[in-house]
Amino acid sequence: MAASAINLAQKLGLIAEPWSPRVIAEMNDYQFKLVKLQGEFVWHAHADTDETFLVVAGTLRMQFRDREEALKAGEMIVVPRGVEHCPRADDECHVLLIEPRGVVNTGDSGGDLTARNDVWI
Amino acid sequence: MAASAINLAQKLGLIAEPWSPRVIAEMNDYQFKLVKLQGEFVWHAHADTDETFLVVAGTLRMQFRDREEALKAGEMIVVPRGVEHCPRADDECHVLLIEPRGVVNTGDSGGDLTARNDVWI
Repeated sequence: MAASAINLAQKLGLIAEPWSPRVIAEMNDYQFKLVKLQGEFVWHAHADTDETFLVVAGTLRMQFRDREEALKAGEMIVVPRGVEHCPRADDECHVLLIEPRGVVNTGDSGGDLTARNDVWI
Repeated sequence: MAASAINLAQKLGLIAEPWSPRVIAEMNDYQFKLVKLQGEFVWHAHADTDETFLVVAGTLRMQFRDREEALKAGEMIVVPRGVEHCPRADDECHVLLIEPRGVVNTGDSGGDLTARNDVWI
């Protein structure tokens, strides 16, 4: 695969639906995914991996069972493996996810918001 | 480790010297490092890993042996393992590096710009 510049804003323009992660790049066995958030996701955890959220636009409210972290554009958070979390965005928020290939967005919780994996744009 | 929001601009304010990557977070056995670039680095490759550059501010010119990719803020590139590259920034440029823990900045080339590894801010 040739190494080419990837423009996050251009790629985000290709995404219509919230809660639908789209892969834009791979690094070893990790993937970079862009996702639009709006409203509240589902409580879940990933037993086998940490998960990184880097906010590109808007405000992400990362809810944990005991507290909440608000992140603006230019801020990131690494959710440790096994820690329950529930992302929320009162207004549309754009996030770059970084995690191993194959991670399911709803983790161990499943449900309607479970997205098809490995969809590239 | 508690999951807390990390502000890239705030962390960048703690870095004085160019070509001195500073770790700001870990995800599994990967690290997120901020680095300021100014001038030309050294030609090198990483035999065992891909390496991701996400531009936070300024313009990064990623030179390959056969071409160059110019990246602005909000753009990223994954340099594949084994591919020779030489970052260049005519004016100061701020980059978020994502790569496995322990990667040496000058790869297999060494030299004066080889930075101490695993320095956190």
